[in-house]
Amino acid sequence: MDYQHQFLEGQTHLPAGKVVCIGRNYAEHAKELNNPVPDEPLLFIKPSTAIIPLSQPIALPQGRGGLHYETEVAILIGERLTHASEADVVTAIAGVGLALDLTLRDLQSTLKAKGLPWEKAKAFDGSCSLSAFVAPAGLDLTQLELTLRINDQIRQQGNTAQMLLPVTALLAYISAWFTLLPGDVVLTGTPAGVGQLNSGDKLSLQLDQVITAETRVV
Amino acid sequence: MDYQHQFLEGQTHLPAGKVVCIGRNYAEHAKELNNPVPDEPLLFIKPSTAIIPLSQPIALPQGRGGLHYETEVAILIGERLTHASEADVVTAIAGVGLALDLTLRDLQSTLKAKGLPWEKAKAFDGSCSLSAFVAPAGLDLTQLELTLRINDQIRQQGNTAQMLLPVTALLAYISAWFTLLPGDVVLTGTPAGVGQLNSGDKLSLQLDQVITAETRVV
Repeated sequence: MDYQHQFLEGQTHLPAGKVVCIGRNYAEHAKELNNPVPDEPLLFIKPSTAIIPLSQPIALPQGRGGLHYETEVAILIGERLTHASEADVVTAIAGVGLALDLTLRDLQSTLKAKGLPWEKAKAFDGSCSLSAFVAPAGLDLTQLELTLRINDQIRQQGNTAQMLLPVTALLAYISAWFTLLPGDVVLTGTPAGVGQLNSGDKLSLQLDQVITAETRVV
Repeated sequence: MDYQHQFLEGQTHLPAGKVVCIGRNYAEHAKELNNPVPDEPLLFIKPSTAIIPLSQPIALPQGRGGLHYETEVAILIGERLTHASEADVVTAIAGVGLALDLTLRDLQSTLKAKGLPWEKAKAFDGSCSLSAFVAPAGLDLTQLELTLRINDQIRQQGNTAQMLLPVTALLAYISAWFTLLPGDVVLTGTPAGVGQLNSGDKLSLQLDQVITAETRVV
């Protein structure tokens, strides 16, 4: 499949589509921010202009308050999905990767309090840092361990088994609201342990034995 | 310019980029929904999968509450804009058109009350209905009259002179948060008079003497 080859072999191109994200998909993370677990999946979107490679250092936005990390499993979409069933989505998964959903937390708190849209806090340029993707063959998406270390200390550790909405159910759910296209990416939520990034931080991300990636904050 | 030709002459292609929108850019509209005029421009985004041509009938989403029309002037972007000045943006305007920002108003009210993201109410498939675009040469973007008639009665009538943030200032402001790319579209806010769409409604949109478009609700 040409599309997969473009992103999975050379790894020279970033995905060019939108990034659809779910909030509060791990109960422990909802709790740490004093948020209720939502009745229905909470979805938001980052445009393609939000995407940077994880290999690129993270620049702290100036004058916009604290920037938080959220480590997530990222799914690269390889086929069009609209009102899809869980069975349909399996073959549409072109790749599995790691992402940092970078969030202007102070700004997000202000927007939430006023009932305003989240885009300024979640969808700004550089707000989605993505690793290379690996082909999904042989991976059990319901049993993937993800870990974030900052300056060699573990800050986030989770397992996709803890997701409130597992990957295939999430893709099917999203596709009933927002058609997914080849080159789109889905972020699957973050486990507990989110926190603020500081200049000079060194981040190491790991997805099981499959992906390791490093970045730093400048 | 090839890019303009693709969208302006044949009009066979829809823009393929994201749609960046401003809320409450006409004071009278903010007032009618009992919203304060925001201290800072309120921005939100629809992905390319939200775009349908105005020539295509509007399908009322089932089981998601009332669907509201918001008539807006749409700007087609022809050049990359990032942290641009007002002077920079003028040559980046490839086209001027009309849009319906279709909004699931009941759902939006619920999301706002809970401080949740707006995407489900604003960015769903088909939520951005776009006319053909005309080249901006000769148009005064600060003096364009827009009108929506439903079943031959005027429902919305405004002039871009009433915008709190005029077009060039808006594009410059957006580009400091979200880089704009060729093929992106900016929706510039809606004047007063928004309301619910009902099956069978016939909509006529007009932008000055430049664009007329019709659609209907099924």
